[in-house]
Amino acid sequence: MTTLYDVIVVGGGLAGLNAAYEFKKSGLNVLVLEARDRFGGRTESIKVDEYWFDLGGQWMGGTHKYLKQLCDELGVKSFPQYDEGKHVLEINGKKVYYSGNISTLNKGYDLEGLNETIQKIDELASELNPEAPHAHQKSREYDHLTVSEWLDRNTKGIDAKSIINWFCRVCVAAEPSEVSFLYFLHFIRTAGSYSLLADIHGGAQQDRLIGGSQQISEGLAKKLGSSSFALNSPVRAISQDANQCSVRTDLTTYRAKYVVVAIPPTLAGRIDYKPPMPAKRDELTQRMPMGSVIKTIVIYDEPFWRKEGYSAEAISDQGPIFICYDDSSHDDKKTAIVGFIAASAAKDWAEKSPEERKQAVLECYARWWGPKALKPRYFLEKSWKEEEYSRGCYVGYTSPGILGQCGEALRKPVGRIHWAGTETASAWVGYMEGALESGFRVSKEIKQRLTNSKL
Amino acid sequence: MTTLYDVIVVGGGLAGLNAAYEFKKSGLNVLVLEARDRFGGRTESIKVDEYWFDLGGQWMGGTHKYLKQLCDELGVKSFPQYDEGKHVLEINGKKVYYSGNISTLNKGYDLEGLNETIQKIDELASELNPEAPHAHQKSREYDHLTVSEWLDRNTKGIDAKSIINWFCRVCVAAEPSEVSFLYFLHFIRTAGSYSLLADIHGGAQQDRLIGGSQQISEGLAKKLGSSSFALNSPVRAISQDANQCSVRTDLTTYRAKYVVVAIPPTLAGRIDYKPPMPAKRDELTQRMPMGSVIKTIVIYDEPFWRKEGYSAEAISDQGPIFICYDDSSHDDKKTAIVGFIAASAAKDWAEKSPEERKQAVLECYARWWGPKALKPRYFLEKSWKEEEYSRGCYVGYTSPGILGQCGEALRKPVGRIHWAGTETASAWVGYMEGALESGFRVSKEIKQRLTNSKL
Repeated sequence: MTTLYDVIVVGGGLAGLNAAYEFKKSGLNVLVLEARDRFGGRTESIKVDEYWFDLGGQWMGGTHKYLKQLCDELGVKSFPQYDEGKHVLEINGKKVYYSGNISTLNKGYDLEGLNETIQKIDELASELNPEAPHAHQKSREYDHLTVSEWLDRNTKGIDAKSIINWFCRVCVAAEPSEVSFLYFLHFIRTAGSYSLLADIHGGAQQDRLIGGSQQISEGLAKKLGSSSFALNSPVRAISQDANQCSVRTDLTTYRAKYVVVAIPPTLAGRIDYKPPMPAKRDELTQRMPMGSVIKTIVIYDEPFWRKEGYSAEAISDQGPIFICYDDSSHDDKKTAIVGFIAASAAKDWAEKSPEERKQAVLECYARWWGPKALKPRYFLEKSWKEEEYSRGCYVGYTSPGILGQCGEALRKPVGRIHWAGTETASAWVGYMEGALESGFRVSKEIKQRLTNSKL
Repeated sequence: MTTLYDVIVVGGGLAGLNAAYEFKKSGLNVLVLEARDRFGGRTESIKVDEYWFDLGGQWMGGTHKYLKQLCDELGVKSFPQYDEGKHVLEINGKKVYYSGNISTLNKGYDLEGLNETIQKIDELASELNPEAPHAHQKSREYDHLTVSEWLDRNTKGIDAKSIINWFCRVCVAAEPSEVSFLYFLHFIRTAGSYSLLADIHGGAQQDRLIGGSQQISEGLAKKLGSSSFALNSPVRAISQDANQCSVRTDLTTYRAKYVVVAIPPTLAGRIDYKPPMPAKRDELTQRMPMGSVIKTIVIYDEPFWRKEGYSAEAISDQGPIFICYDDSSHDDKKTAIVGFIAASAAKDWAEKSPEERKQAVLECYARWWGPKALKPRYFLEKSWKEEEYSRGCYVGYTSPGILGQCGEALRKPVGRIHWAGTETASAWVGYMEGALESGFRVSKEIKQRLTNSKL
């Protein structure tokens, strides 16, 4: 007879590993099954000349308490995101410079309608219950509008429209015309506000981790111990009856009292369930695709932008880079710029050759900071759509009509199967923080059931 | 060594079986793998007191030439959809009667803006290439609007909006706010026009098949012979190299030179491919969910509606039945009404008990045709969302942002894997006719490659 685990966790990203660590600390017998040959899911760090760069999730926000706590526990040090000097704002054909946080860039400039629009969006977002966006009385109304449709109806300011469209592209990695306005509000609600998402100081891009973010997952896996996980183990099928679950990989079938599926809904939908998923859960997995993003890192021999008073932060509605930041190492010995190609542009650019993409990114930087940008030491990139076990980044989002009607299915357990992952978070959906929060939440759910079953 | 088939077809619905029959007729060695214990996919006929009723695809349209041809070959007889007498139109709180085709219902009534709106939609649809909706110069513009957003911008007529919204719900089985306007135009384009979709005479609901529609698939399977198919064989994985493909079910791995995947994109996305699918194909499978529909059939001892001059055709924006027709047998010995609960209402009603749904449907008919409707002999229903190997009906549709950018991936072969199914049709997407057309098209593609490889 094979081992009957207390819990099997599907997915060795931050959500799954954090849940598993909680189970382990409670003395439960847990097994993590990870499809890839590595931990970390949508975080992936790569070493270049002894310095780690992040091809996936990267920043620790000012309010990311679970991530901070875990970094402290694992001995991971952080340092502030560099943002000294002038930032570039290139929008509606204008180019201006600003400094400080993105949420305050309107102060110095006449960005028509922006203040009012952000205020209105924050106000609507604040009314939602982050654990149940579908429960709001207007949830279906919001959910039947796209972000761009709401903007067309609610703001006349051309700059406001462009900035919010840009914000949707870089934060959700999908076009404003593809994203449900309810999802957009929910995304903002779980982060706290527009400014918390957009900003460095106090916001989502406040700090970076020395050594990269993948080490968090690796640190958790180490704490679990090698008898508590299996890599290269994509889960193909999960069956359950009243007493237990069977989890099948290509080589083995495991048994457990409970299962946590800690992968994005669109991937969770590819598992064969017996009995089949209820209609609403299946519908959710059919309609929560991953965003589109190509992350690029250009490593330069020197931080030439700094010398000319630039921060390497730029916002553009022209692209191919829509947002970028200084990505130099904590000791400034390795200097770099990290930039994102996001939403439909990411799909278009993914069709081009690596050389064409590289050239376009370098020319974009040269446009902002001069010809030195054309001579990098290294060019790194990652198109997350190509990654078999992510199929997009940063996060699963929804088009109109699904979150309002089937939102409950995001977290509602189906028999002995529970759901985790940053998509299921009630704090910081789409971020490492959200993944961790979902891991804590799901571990509490299952520990409660195990306790109840012993009573 | 196992058999090397010329072609393995995944899916024993009309598309897959029609393709397989074409291969067979060309002397090729073909195997059809069907997940269910029956053929027919989204067609399913059920026998009640010696008469067959269709829980799935049902009608043969006036221009459904492939279906007509196959019926003739298989000896399946058709008869006209009954529509004598008054039809009910219940919209925006009004109730009126009309007769004849739905597309002409505006003639007798003041339906504000309807004519112009239909004309405009038909005109825009006619400009699309049914084989490549994404190739139109405005494809991305159309694809970033929902149907309801386009209506809001382009028509002021309240009745026009309501009728087109209703039409989207009953034809696409999704809310107008969920459906890309480009998809909507494409759907109409492949059928020919709004009226061809809406109508009985000359249109999509012109004729019915004596004995039900599932017998078409069964007839095709019989022609193939039992050595050419396997039921109860859900395909889990397809791998390919430069020379051949391996197709794995739970029990067996088969080999073939080519594979036809003839299932809806959202289900095709659940197969594990080696090498993994290219980004755009995977993205398509993440973003082409199935519609939502509950089909109901109420069998009565007598056609009480006919006696009072009604046809049993009704259009309603109130529901729970949004469209219904007389569903009596060809000899009028078994009398019935077939009605559809569609789009988000189908998901809401699926949450209720069978008894509540039955009562609501009967009361809806009683509202239109009097209290005799409350006393049926039988009540049949099928919620297609619950069906494991369909996960919705009638068809996979798209929200904004996918058809315009990834439409090519609908039919573009990936190595030795080709795609079929009504979603891939260039004529009558979403209909049995479209499934058959896709079967012919895919069989030509592969026969051509087999011929080329012999040259």
